[in-house]
Amino acid sequence: MNLFDPAFVPDRAPGQTVGTLHGIGLGPGDPELLTVKAVRLIRAAPVVAYFAKKGRRGNARTIVDSWLAPGVEEMPLEYPVTTEIGFAEEGYRRELGGFYEEAAARLSAVLASGRDVALLAEGDPLFYGSFMHLFVRLDGRFPIAIVPGVTGMSGCWTAARSPITWGDDVLTVLPGTLPEATLVERLKATDAAVVMKLGSHFAKVRRALAEAGRDGEAVYVERGTMAGETVMRLADKPDDDAPYFSILLVPGNGRRP
Amino acid sequence: MNLFDPAFVPDRAPGQTVGTLHGIGLGPGDPELLTVKAVRLIRAAPVVAYFAKKGRRGNARTIVDSWLAPGVEEMPLEYPVTTEIGFAEEGYRRELGGFYEEAAARLSAVLASGRDVALLAEGDPLFYGSFMHLFVRLDGRFPIAIVPGVTGMSGCWTAARSPITWGDDVLTVLPGTLPEATLVERLKATDAAVVMKLGSHFAKVRRALAEAGRDGEAVYVERGTMAGETVMRLADKPDDDAPYFSILLVPGNGRRP
Repeated sequence: MNLFDPAFVPDRAPGQTVGTLHGIGLGPGDPELLTVKAVRLIRAAPVVAYFAKKGRRGNARTIVDSWLAPGVEEMPLEYPVTTEIGFAEEGYRRELGGFYEEAAARLSAVLASGRDVALLAEGDPLFYGSFMHLFVRLDGRFPIAIVPGVTGMSGCWTAARSPITWGDDVLTVLPGTLPEATLVERLKATDAAVVMKLGSHFAKVRRALAEAGRDGEAVYVERGTMAGETVMRLADKPDDDAPYFSILLVPGNGRRP
Repeated sequence: MNLFDPAFVPDRAPGQTVGTLHGIGLGPGDPELLTVKAVRLIRAAPVVAYFAKKGRRGNARTIVDSWLAPGVEEMPLEYPVTTEIGFAEEGYRRELGGFYEEAAARLSAVLASGRDVALLAEGDPLFYGSFMHLFVRLDGRFPIAIVPGVTGMSGCWTAARSPITWGDDVLTVLPGTLPEATLVERLKATDAAVVMKLGSHFAKVRRALAEAGRDGEAVYVERGTMAGETVMRLADKPDDDAPYFSILLVPGNGRRP
């Protein structure tokens, strides 16, 4: 029953000479919330790639610290920009697009040499994931296998011990980056909600929750399942400071037999 | 690095004499998509409980087949009713409520004797999970620990290789049980959508997608990550038959630098 066999090698298609890109979901932050499949593939990969802000180690790399095989080659993919430039700005799109192109070229070189790469993705790779930007650039050129992960929002509602949806509840997942009026409209219309990407948008999201009449039910979770995890009712949060790894939950109240 | 140490015993609070109820997410169906934490706790539990239809083994039990420790005591919790009775009917609520009360009483007896119970939950325990009905009945009476899981919908969009949300996309999760007009309205208003609980509601959901102008983008996934997995464009699905483990996806098309 030792799944972490050091001799494990992932399957390849007959005649496959290039490497496989494995997009691997890491889950919400607790290293034990990686799936068995994720750990197995990470330990088997000769090259492990991950996104990080320039000069930082990055959260993805931190999550897998105890799982990396000895001697693995690490390939940090360092973002050129930070959140200080707005998404709408042309410079942001151009710079980030160039970064993804360059990252895809670096991965291509390794894959073309026949070596597999494990590309780490916090949460689930296909849910607001940076992985997707490399997936669309490399799909069709190399074999790509994807391992889903526990989302950050699942980690947060578990940390809060808050069932999020019951029975016929509708769940709406909202990026906090949306305009205030849009947030109000969406929050009014849904049974349950998750607001992600808070950061500098926190004060606006709090106002939107209040205007939609949903602030009394909201729960704030910071660093769910990670060291420094914090859970509190929004009403008890004295300030509007929220790091990137924070989320607001509005639990549903549907059918309960 | 053997996490599945047969001598592993979960922590208890000082002085705790009763057992802990572990609500454990099993993920979307592939046994390798359990988290490391889930496997560790399932293998350490003296009693493993799971929901099943009367006379069936049940999907939860099937998923953990290769993970159960030898000699573990199994406690199937058998649903008295099937989906043939509508949710709105008073008889359904009463019968199901009685079933959850009885299941809670059975778990209480084991926990009171000082033994831990691992209660299995397909997908994520707090996302439309049956686990929640026992959680609200037992919380405060016994220690309860919850392990989040990969949701069924993550398994399905991974099977479809469809990134579900990009950039500022809004995701709406809709039970197929909702009225047709509600589905149309919600599908029109969202960027990305997941429609769950299809079954006998499939034809209605297909009509709603068409009326909302979203049927062309929709992808149908059956048994995502499990044996018999099927993925196809909704447009290519010739019939309206859909089992319980099926889902419709409308992928988002947000910002892609």
